[in-house]
Amino acid sequence: MATMATIRFVEESQATGEVKAVFDEVKAMLRVPFVPQLFRALAVNPAHLVSTWDQLKTVMMTGTLDLRTKAIAALAVSAATRCPYFVSAHTAVLKRLGVTDAELEELMTVVQLAIGLNAYVDGLGLEPDLHR
Amino acid sequence: MATMATIRFVEESQATGEVKAVFDEVKAMLRVPFVPQLFRALAVNPAHLVSTWDQLKTVMMTGTLDLRTKAIAALAVSAATRCPYFVSAHTAVLKRLGVTDAELEELMTVVQLAIGLNAYVDGLGLEPDLHR
Amino acid sequence: MATMATIRFVEESQATGEVKAVFDEVKAMLRVPFVPQLFRALAVNPAHLVSTWDQLKTVMMTGTLDLRTKAIAALAVSAATRCPYFVSAHTAVLKRLGVTDAELEELMTVVQLAIGLNAYVDGLGLEPDLHR
Amino acid sequence: MATMATIRFVEESQATGEVKAVFDEVKAMLRVPFVPQLFRALAVNPAHLVSTWDQLKTVMMTGTLDLRTKAIAALAVSAATRCPYFVSAHTAVLKRLGVTDAELEELMTVVQLAIGLNAYVDGLGLEPDLHR
Amino acid sequence: MATMATIRFVEESQATGEVKAVFDEVKAMLRVPFVPQLFRALAVNPAHLVSTWDQLKTVMMTGTLDLRTKAIAALAVSAATRCPYFVSAHTAVLKRLGVTDAELEELMTVVQLAIGLNAYVDGLGLEPDLHR
Amino acid sequence: MATMATIRFVEESQATGEVKAVFDEVKAMLRVPFVPQLFRALAVNPAHLVSTWDQLKTVMMTGTLDLRTKAIAALAVSAATRCPYFVSAHTAVLKRLGVTDAELEELMTVVQLAIGLNAYVDGLGLEPDLHR
Repeated sequence: MATMATIRFVEESQATGEVKAVFDEVKAMLRVPFVPQLFRALAVNPAHLVSTWDQLKTVMMTGTLDLRTKAIAALAVSAATRCPYFVSAHTAVLKRLGVTDAELEELMTVVQLAIGLNAYVDGLGLEPDLHR
Repeated sequence: MATMATIRFVEESQATGEVKAVFDEVKAMLRVPFVPQLFRALAVNPAHLVSTWDQLKTVMMTGTLDLRTKAIAALAVSAATRCPYFVSAHTAVLKRLGVTDAELEELMTVVQLAIGLNAYVDGLGLEPDLHR
Repeated sequence: MATMATIRFVEESQATGEVKAVFDEVKAMLRVPFVPQLFRALAVNPAHLVSTWDQLKTVMMTGTLDLRTKAIAALAVSAATRCPYFVSAHTAVLKRLGVTDAELEELMTVVQLAIGLNAYVDGLGLEPDLHR
Repeated sequence: MATMATIRFVEESQATGEVKAVFDEVKAMLRVPFVPQLFRALAVNPAHLVSTWDQLKTVMMTGTLDLRTKAIAALAVSAATRCPYFVSAHTAVLKRLGVTDAELEELMTVVQLAIGLNAYVDGLGLEPDLHR
Repeated sequence: MATMATIRFVEESQATGEVKAVFDEVKAMLRVPFVPQLFRALAVNPAHLVSTWDQLKTVMMTGTLDLRTKAIAALAVSAATRCPYFVSAHTAVLKRLGVTDAELEELMTVVQLAIGLNAYVDGLGLEPDLHR
Repeated sequence: MATMATIRFVEESQATGEVKAVFDEVKAMLRVPFVPQLFRALAVNPAHLVSTWDQLKTVMMTGTLDLRTKAIAALAVSAATRCPYFVSAHTAVLKRLGVTDAELEELMTVVQLAIGLNAYVDGLGLEPDLHR
């Protein structure tokens, strides 16, 4: 099947210097044998690859919320914004972390409920009344 | 300030029968001294109040994901879809569950990263390449 | 309260020519004693006012779907995309057309259900299986 | 083509008890010879299937708005939120109810107009000025 | 692969009168040897084709912002709202205008940053503090 | 009016070390006499402030697209996703760069057109047919 990608990505074999360094880190950290397209696209402007990878590590790997909770939040957001690439990617991460099919389904009912009620209250002009 | 609500809600003092029963349950479960507008709006059609409250309890109170994780996912979704009512409400729930300001900020960086990368990959036409 | 508007609109008293003509038509058609901000903003570039007003009349006033059904669809969309300006405006139109508070609430449960299930199926990667 | 679904659904042949009861009701009500993936996904947690099916029936089958109007609102929402699964499903329902291709196109111009103007007014910071 | 389109479009060979006139103008202006589906769908109701084409020309071809800037804004919006059809179409236009793969990638980092920070501030309830 | 912010931000007077360094840089670069809430919120976790500020500078200040074009794309995205905070902030930046009210209005008609047609084509199931 022809790809829909609109630009040409950096080939893994062409990577050198800091791009190669990030590529290697990505493969090691995600434990995948190839560099996902996301990073090959970012590498078109090496500064973007470095900057995004740094932010990704800062956000996902530091702080007090655990990785599983963060990946759950990220998957919820990706479902809410309809992104097949990251629905697939975050689900893959969660499965490795031991999340079951039943829990993934359960998470999506939370998304269904939350986004449904979001639209409901905004469609009727409700104003916040539950505060700390 | 005048309310922006587009319809007239059911007054708490007017509730009877199954509407009153749900109102009482809502106040007890959320431990608030008043019935939030959401439920007073749903009560305009009592069957909607009952049906949504049942679904809310089923989704949030059963299953294997804990309430804190679910409320985090719900807040992430509400941030992603820009709903002030539920950003406020889910944050209130999370604070009662002991989530700190620093963790709420941390969660929003996860949302920022996730939704940002969602749009990035879709804007370049990337197709899923990270599967189970 | 100070307005949040980011640009200066055309004052009704300053309108001349085709702008004034559209302004008059807008007030007559919507039966309001003032020109809503939407049209005063569009008038900053008169061609945009004319073009949008023409499209609005074509879409809302011709065809076989009745105005009430169209305004219901427009309100559903405005709830789904969180637009207070048009939630308010489309609701006002529907109330004039005789739609009740209970029906507006009912419509929002349809939006709640639809948008909730939309996210649910996309979050699990479902593909269309119900066709003509 | 391989499916993109991220979890394993309940097979129709494996359904028993209340899951089978809902499956049978779904097929009868939608008049389809198979159980759509949506319901087979929900059945992973039987309580979710029952709860969502109950809500679906309450929302779509009771009240004073007719089914055609509700399905039109649901399709408008699904277009606004970009959900191929439900664009396809709600369109299928509407075609059975006699809605023509020309009316479906007409509906999408309403969505186009509504969502376009939603973003226009929010991008210029307009505040509601059309009330009841 | 079977098309997902939900309605039957107007065939180019069937176009007459004002529909044919717009079709010819579209092909000439976009310099494509066929009429894109968008216009064949609009043609189902000829008034919609004329109205949308007029608006498209007014918006994209008049005013003081140049076409390249407008197409960049349109692509940014299409990425933000996840529309493969227009991600593809606006990208094609930009490539003809000389925009490079590196610039398209750069644009998507702008979208990533903007939409990410949008959700971040809304998820924490921030209010505008940067005005003119 | 009471703020809607859900967490307590870092006060400018409390900033030390790298937080103070970024705060000073922000004020100098944006030429504002105070630190916008966005950065005071990020500072709750200093690593997030540093990481986001670095990314913001990388994305907005490097590459070949000029700042005006990028701010236009960012404003278009903020209108599309309904973010009052950044509609206000990006508009302020653009006004300083000399963009007029008429051009801001013109930009919003581009957003209106783009997002409207996005929903239109997705609501009818169209597939990309305009490629490079």
